[in-house]
Amino acid sequence: MKTFNTLLLAGALSLGLANTGLAQESAQTAKMLIEKAQTSTIGWDLLESLTTEIGPRLGGSEAEARARDWAVNKLTMLGFSNVHIEPFEMDGWQRGSIALHVGNPYPQRLVATALGGSIGTPVGGITAPVVRFETVQDLIDAPVGSLKGKIAYVADKMTRTQRGSGYGVAVQKRGAGAALASERGALAIIIRSAGTDYQRQPHTGGVRYKEGIPAIPAAALSNNDADQLDRLLRLKADIPLTLSMSSKRLGRVKSGNVIGEIIGSEYPDEVVLLGAHLDSWDEGTGAIDDGTGVSIVTAAATLVGKYAKPKRTIRVVLFGSEEPGLIGARAYVKDHKADMDKIIMVSESDFGSGRVWRMDTGIAKADEAKADAILRVLRPLGVLPGERTASGGSDVSALSGAGAPAISMVQNGWDYFDLHHTPNDTLDKVDPDDLAQNIAVYAAFALMVANTEGGFHAPEKPAAED
Amino acid sequence: MKTFNTLLLAGALSLGLANTGLAQESAQTAKMLIEKAQTSTIGWDLLESLTTEIGPRLGGSEAEARARDWAVNKLTMLGFSNVHIEPFEMDGWQRGSIALHVGNPYPQRLVATALGGSIGTPVGGITAPVVRFETVQDLIDAPVGSLKGKIAYVADKMTRTQRGSGYGVAVQKRGAGAALASERGALAIIIRSAGTDYQRQPHTGGVRYKEGIPAIPAAALSNNDADQLDRLLRLKADIPLTLSMSSKRLGRVKSGNVIGEIIGSEYPDEVVLLGAHLDSWDEGTGAIDDGTGVSIVTAAATLVGKYAKPKRTIRVVLFGSEEPGLIGARAYVKDHKADMDKIIMVSESDFGSGRVWRMDTGIAKADEAKADAILRVLRPLGVLPGERTASGGSDVSALSGAGAPAISMVQNGWDYFDLHHTPNDTLDKVDPDDLAQNIAVYAAFALMVANTEGGFHAPEKPAAED
Repeated sequence: MKTFNTLLLAGALSLGLANTGLAQESAQTAKMLIEKAQTSTIGWDLLESLTTEIGPRLGGSEAEARARDWAVNKLTMLGFSNVHIEPFEMDGWQRGSIALHVGNPYPQRLVATALGGSIGTPVGGITAPVVRFETVQDLIDAPVGSLKGKIAYVADKMTRTQRGSGYGVAVQKRGAGAALASERGALAIIIRSAGTDYQRQPHTGGVRYKEGIPAIPAAALSNNDADQLDRLLRLKADIPLTLSMSSKRLGRVKSGNVIGEIIGSEYPDEVVLLGAHLDSWDEGTGAIDDGTGVSIVTAAATLVGKYAKPKRTIRVVLFGSEEPGLIGARAYVKDHKADMDKIIMVSESDFGSGRVWRMDTGIAKADEAKADAILRVLRPLGVLPGERTASGGSDVSALSGAGAPAISMVQNGWDYFDLHHTPNDTLDKVDPDDLAQNIAVYAAFALMVANTEGGFHAPEKPAAED
Repeated sequence: MKTFNTLLLAGALSLGLANTGLAQESAQTAKMLIEKAQTSTIGWDLLESLTTEIGPRLGGSEAEARARDWAVNKLTMLGFSNVHIEPFEMDGWQRGSIALHVGNPYPQRLVATALGGSIGTPVGGITAPVVRFETVQDLIDAPVGSLKGKIAYVADKMTRTQRGSGYGVAVQKRGAGAALASERGALAIIIRSAGTDYQRQPHTGGVRYKEGIPAIPAAALSNNDADQLDRLLRLKADIPLTLSMSSKRLGRVKSGNVIGEIIGSEYPDEVVLLGAHLDSWDEGTGAIDDGTGVSIVTAAATLVGKYAKPKRTIRVVLFGSEEPGLIGARAYVKDHKADMDKIIMVSESDFGSGRVWRMDTGIAKADEAKADAILRVLRPLGVLPGERTASGGSDVSALSGAGAPAISMVQNGWDYFDLHHTPNDTLDKVDPDDLAQNIAVYAAFALMVANTEGGFHAPEKPAAED
């Protein structure tokens, strides 16, 4: 914990909390929670247990069902109330095998992975010349019909950024590429992984087909293999590829959200909602996506329940089936329309275990002074003031989009997309000190929000859904 | 250059430049400039020459005067037109020596540096108990008179971020701390460096005194020494320090801006202004702050002049005395009020040699499609779309603040504040590949802006001065 700095000098100066709705006492309790989080092992133990005992837990799979039972058991043992599962249904998917080969005159195998939700190829695979596009925009500019009998390939590289903003650009080819390529006549699409590493591990992630446009097989190359293909295409521009995939879409399957609460002492029906998602992709063990989030919000709420007396209820929601497209989050909003106005804050942890370095708000302007008072307590943990466009995180953006106040604890994602959606997303990648900083931030934040007089209100202009 | 990706396939698809004012031909010329920048040594040679032959060049010093002569010579040799110096006057400053000692019961020396512009102490130094403040806000909250006979110490740590946003918070204590402490009765102020490294090198930087409030000596501790002092203060809360500084303010001295132009072939009186600053702090050799900026904009404009025919004039302005407070930039605005409306774009390079990863705009909404067309050419260099609040950079913010359109090429500053304003700001810290990526970006950008039909216009709401 050497880089924490929570030095509390005797005779500390006034916290300057006048008119912020945050009592001196709550700020001091929050500081105590920050200290507790540094020595607590609750968070690490949860993360180790989930990634070891369950491992990968694809949305809608039998493993995800075991993860829900795991979560109910853990939340109950940690002292949460109202622990239960809220089930929903969804379309299932199974990965199968994949093989991608370059044809003559440079025959060789390339390392690829099926995109989540992709259909398979016919047995024997698809063999066709490849057409390379530098960016999705170049694919969009290609005329309809121009890819007839071809395999489309979109080659743009993801830019590494702290906030992960390179992902928003890079992921367009993964989400929308298949429909765009199919619309132009392509038989299949391969993309350079939306990821920043060179560990020869392709990054999976969901593909979005479009109603009325034929679904085509979609796969991602590792960055190493995309570089290799780029070099081969300079030697021969229309080199043939053979893609074989046995992945397939299943019928309706079961998933669910797991919920537990620390009941508020004064306003039990007013809710501070902390989210994370329980499902993961299937190739790693879902440590940073989103085992850490499950660990962070669960451990933070546990510490609040153990050492403080929050005035409002803190509700932990472990969403199911985030990866296939926020399915659990949408089910939650649908099921909770009637009590939406009781949610005074949403925040999700779903960006690995990098330290929180900024606090973004999505709240009414009149409540900004309250957020500033909270930030002041979090400042010694390295948290900077941020932007006023927070959605709260991917799952809970369905809630903030529907009018809930949100605060996003922005994590350092410099290395996140080296691991995200790859086999390398495993426990060893998590730094325990960084995890503890996150738990400290969420515990102090949750307590202070729960105790802020007057609560928080939706911003004048709601955030867009992530 | 392994991470560049400028693969240009035969039969490249349409660039989709309709209605963006950017001709296909200019986009192709820009791509050629990107290729040239990757093998050119002009930028590195300039940087090596400046940091070796001149070395440190404090604003208003004799060394800065030699740097101006160096710049005039280089710009002339590289084929620039209208090369000249625009002189101005300013208040001078001399560093002198510094010694900071902890008193009993833990006598020892701490490593500190005078803040730029600070007055010295009386001979024999100032000995007084130290009062610690966690943040500037805590210092603000201290009552007037409460620091009588004390040395104030502000301890907050800078948060490392890619964009450098932690600096804006951390630097408040350096800029405003002395006046705040003096107002409350303090004899001197010491701060934890506004920097992110642990190399036991304090970070200097300008202090801002306030009219009517007595100037007091101001110094920065290295992060290592600030940690040490924090530990000592936990053992004894009001430990005495002895600070001796012989720095002093001088009278009026000379400085100046150096200007050179690549004359436009069609609209020679319309100007694309590329800025950087020639001065540096005195403890390093000003390699990343801002030798790289001088190198980047000069090399970029040189390449445009050598290999392309820009329609508008590209003006390089190497500002003097940026570090003491944008003095050259303010002189430039004052001297050029009459021809301000001829400036159709400003952009400055002043954030080291980290790669450009984002392009922010500060232009009229109607011109955004033109910027998008430029960005599309820069995308293969890793440049992402950005925010619409660009000032163009620190010096040129004086110009964009006065109504000039601006684009900021946002560099990766993850490591920048490890070096910034320290003795470690030396040539060896610059990665030649990263420098080349910057030069490629600026060369392509400058050419495309110079050739964009209709030019660029100021945003509806001008950016704030940096």
